[in-house]
Amino acid sequence: MKLILALDFGGTKLAAALLEVGSQEWLRYERRLSPRNANATTDLGIMRELVGSLLQGEKPDAIGVSFGGPVDAATGVVRLSHHVPGWENVRLRELLEEKFGIRVSVDNDANVAALGEFSFGAGVGYESLFYITVSTGVGGGWILNGKPFRGASGMAGEIGHMVVDPNGPLCLCGKRGCVERLASGVYMGRDLREILVKDLQRLERGEGEKVLELVGGDLGLVTGKVVSDAASLGDELAREILYRGAWGLGLGIGNVGNLMNPQLFVLGGSVTKAGEGWWEVVRKTALETALPEVDFEIVKASLGDDAPLWGAVALALLNQ
Amino acid sequence: MKLILALDFGGTKLAAALLEVGSQEWLRYERRLSPRNANATTDLGIMRELVGSLLQGEKPDAIGVSFGGPVDAATGVVRLSHHVPGWENVRLRELLEEKFGIRVSVDNDANVAALGEFSFGAGVGYESLFYITVSTGVGGGWILNGKPFRGASGMAGEIGHMVVDPNGPLCLCGKRGCVERLASGVYMGRDLREILVKDLQRLERGEGEKVLELVGGDLGLVTGKVVSDAASLGDELAREILYRGAWGLGLGIGNVGNLMNPQLFVLGGSVTKAGEGWWEVVRKTALETALPEVDFEIVKASLGDDAPLWGAVALALLNQ
Repeated sequence: MKLILALDFGGTKLAAALLEVGSQEWLRYERRLSPRNANATTDLGIMRELVGSLLQGEKPDAIGVSFGGPVDAATGVVRLSHHVPGWENVRLRELLEEKFGIRVSVDNDANVAALGEFSFGAGVGYESLFYITVSTGVGGGWILNGKPFRGASGMAGEIGHMVVDPNGPLCLCGKRGCVERLASGVYMGRDLREILVKDLQRLERGEGEKVLELVGGDLGLVTGKVVSDAASLGDELAREILYRGAWGLGLGIGNVGNLMNPQLFVLGGSVTKAGEGWWEVVRKTALETALPEVDFEIVKASLGDDAPLWGAVALALLNQ
Repeated sequence: MKLILALDFGGTKLAAALLEVGSQEWLRYERRLSPRNANATTDLGIMRELVGSLLQGEKPDAIGVSFGGPVDAATGVVRLSHHVPGWENVRLRELLEEKFGIRVSVDNDANVAALGEFSFGAGVGYESLFYITVSTGVGGGWILNGKPFRGASGMAGEIGHMVVDPNGPLCLCGKRGCVERLASGVYMGRDLREILVKDLQRLERGEGEKVLELVGGDLGLVTGKVVSDAASLGDELAREILYRGAWGLGLGIGNVGNLMNPQLFVLGGSVTKAGEGWWEVVRKTALETALPEVDFEIVKASLGDDAPLWGAVALALLNQ
């Protein structure tokens, strides 16, 4: 095999890249943001353009696809996207195989990123790892015995909805204190906004001041990023929210350690850029939660924004 | 292969059995309780007697061993027993292989019982299951893709020390609200005793009355079994403790479902005999904790007290 085409349907962005097997650099690379009113048809149209511009008449030998939402990896059928309408039950693999006449492999972004880090990133040389993305939401993907593990119906890896604090705040899923409810960027932003709106006493004590500065007084602009930026500027309230998230994630990681005893946890996603304080709380809590005999490392993902593309390459290679 | 010798070093009992491959019934079977001051040497001596009486001069073709404590399955070295002193770093596999001159396989009782239920019990026909023993303690063992999964250092399956309520009661491991702290027989008995000693108001309201009847007023006799017996007689206090345990276990099971998406949970151990009310709370909580897309069944182990022996047979067969 020589040429691999890697596609990333990312929810807010679309990317495609071409790799010669054995190379560590993209031969060609294209990337575009989804339009505001994107749907499955516009996503597919944009991807068609990116691919046309990438291939320039060349024919790839295999295609790997990362999709930002639940996928049946066995059949390559997309179940839905939580961000873009119209993706319900789209037979993405079939569609691409018919168009290109070559083998196509599709999986969800967390599984693909896990495979990418395992094959090309922070997990090279390990046998078992759990990849966790901590971003808008929290999701995960498994490598066990050197292979992706997806579970009986492809749902394995959902650490985001592990309950770690049954008396904690209510999650959209109906439960309380899920890892995602505590640690994801969206929820951290929302919690901080709510406290600033409701608890004037804290504002009067000067807490949340850095947050207000960062958003120019417009609480609608408070995101997960603002929480971590304000925390790094010393804002007590932002720090409280950020570290509660790190604590919830650390509990989840320690629990996973006891249950599956993987060698390595690889953490990616925007929230992992929140600074050393966040990492310290995650690591300390995970270590306290795991039994003394359960050893693991917790490291930062190394492939950055291109993780889904590198993972898509690994997926295509795995299925040859 | 024809004859398998199965050994169970159970902590409080020792058992050995001989099976002709293909048969569903033991050819011969021996079992003895450990003496009060047992140590590794007395355990091994008793086991030697049981085996001598079983074999009657015949030579087995392989030996499978279940050990009630942490074992390095790769080398067959026992790390320790939590019940019997002297088992630290005993090379059990080597010892038996030298004596019998045949292949010996050793693993801890939870992994072995998981394999037993998978091969001969409630898990026949499934590809992935998590076996949980809910007894004195809480432990677990994995079958994934039709094979035992032990983790990077053989510690996988420790659902007992998954934290499900970080504000819950303190566990011996130093954390709060571990599954074992809530759901195990020993801790349920202890919690009930403590409430009866401290909270006279509840006794005055008639709660705990059935408990006192069952133990003839001697609170030292309150065990996990007494908790479930009193609960089934309608004792409110006992029911509160028992159902809190079932809730904690159900949370753990739902979390495991989201994380690993196995087809089946098999529950064994004395506490699973606590009656339908207990099972209902376990199932309801697990179902609420798991995401809607995550399907699994929760069933009772079917091999009973002989699960370790049947599992030892399966282990011996697996390693041929």
